[in-house]
Amino acid sequence: MILGKVIGTVWATRKDEQLRGLTLQLVRELDPDGSEKSRYVVAVDSVGAGVGETVLFVQGSSARQTEVTKNKPIDAVIVAIVDKMDVEGNKP
Amino acid sequence: MILGKVIGTVWATRKDEQLRGLTLQLVRELDPDGSEKSRYVVAVDSVGAGVGETVLFVQGSSARQTEVTKNKPIDAVIVAIVDKMDVEGNKP
Amino acid sequence: MILGKVIGTVWATRKDEQLRGLTLQLVRELDPDGSEKSRYVVAVDSVGAGVGETVLFVQGSSARQTEVTKNKPIDAVIVAIVDKMDVEGNKP
Amino acid sequence: MILGKVIGTVWATRKDEQLRGLTLQLVRELDPDGSEKSRYVVAVDSVGAGVGETVLFVQGSSARQTEVTKNKPIDAVIVAIVDKMDVEGNKP
Amino acid sequence: MILGKVIGTVWATRKDEQLRGLTLQLVRELDPDGSEKSRYVVAVDSVGAGVGETVLFVQGSSARQTEVTKNKPIDAVIVAIVDKMDVEGNKP
Repeated sequence: MILGKVIGTVWATRKDEQLRGLTLQLVRELDPDGSEKSRYVVAVDSVGAGVGETVLFVQGSSARQTEVTKNKPIDAVIVAIVDKMDVEGNKP
Repeated sequence: MILGKVIGTVWATRKDEQLRGLTLQLVRELDPDGSEKSRYVVAVDSVGAGVGETVLFVQGSSARQTEVTKNKPIDAVIVAIVDKMDVEGNKP
Repeated sequence: MILGKVIGTVWATRKDEQLRGLTLQLVRELDPDGSEKSRYVVAVDSVGAGVGETVLFVQGSSARQTEVTKNKPIDAVIVAIVDKMDVEGNKP
Repeated sequence: MILGKVIGTVWATRKDEQLRGLTLQLVRELDPDGSEKSRYVVAVDSVGAGVGETVLFVQGSSARQTEVTKNKPIDAVIVAIVDKMDVEGNKP
Repeated sequence: MILGKVIGTVWATRKDEQLRGLTLQLVRELDPDGSEKSRYVVAVDSVGAGVGETVLFVQGSSARQTEVTKNKPIDAVIVAIVDKMDVEGNKP
């Protein structure tokens, strides 16, 4: 999984039928210290993540292993909203 | 999924039989602010995307989960044409 | 597999049901000489790796081939704790 | 799929049995304007591509969806020889 | 497949049961001209490759298509030892 921050939402009328009804969130990759990377993905939301939240997203075939994404042409899905990170480097 | 812009079309006569009849679009990766990245993919079009349109494309095994790509040697497919993006950073 | 160092732990209450009970370790990619790269993944721990340990992690669909990750939306898993590396360049 | 140019051939006597009889072409990634990138893959040739030709190659599990690569430990295959590209940016 | 050079061996006592008995080689990615890249993978050896040898390795789900890696949590495997490369740019 990769750490990211939900920075927006993508709207598409013309799309593969299997994407109907799914929320497409724009996610920016994050470093563990919270700094933003210059890589973005559009991920299906399976956990109700809102804009501004720090999340974990899964990519590739594993992105099809949630209830909402199964067998669909989807290669990125948000699977968790991060509450807290204990990072070694953060300990004084 | 990754944001991209259709910038052209690729023509190939000598190709795997399973690619016959499919449109191969040249897609340039985009940042959410619309700036162009230096990464390109050739993706099968499953939604009628034209040159100049902003799209979402799927990669890897998930690219074989559309009706036109199933079981074929295809690792990138356009699955949506983007109408609009609400991006946090765009709000004044 | 990729070499990494466990640098922390990620906590998430709201997550896909299939992630319940799993430890999510934050892993920083390492070069063989021990220098740290600027790439991070969050990986499920299948071998009891603690913070500070050098590990091998597996990505993609292969990350679903352990007992604890099977059929789950997981794309990274720690599969080994490294005891020792014999690297050619280290021999004087 | 990714655009590339066949720049050579790789010879290997000691190899997995399933690779016997296959041509292993060295492919350099290309930008649509024809400039060469610094990324190379060794791909199985399924369409008779010769050195110097511009091709499309497929990666990952989709590379096992051709007749010559099915079920084999192969993660890159040439699936088309490019005749022509219509690129928006090329139109004056 | 990607070109690489075996530069060492990794030892791990605590590991997924399915990795027992396998040789884990440290591989550094190579350019076709033999120059070393700054990317490393740890790959299972399926062909008896020794330190210093130039090899081809396979990544992703295709890495599970050899006899020694089938159904295991392995995402990189050495499938060939390179004897020779005919590279266009090398011809005077």
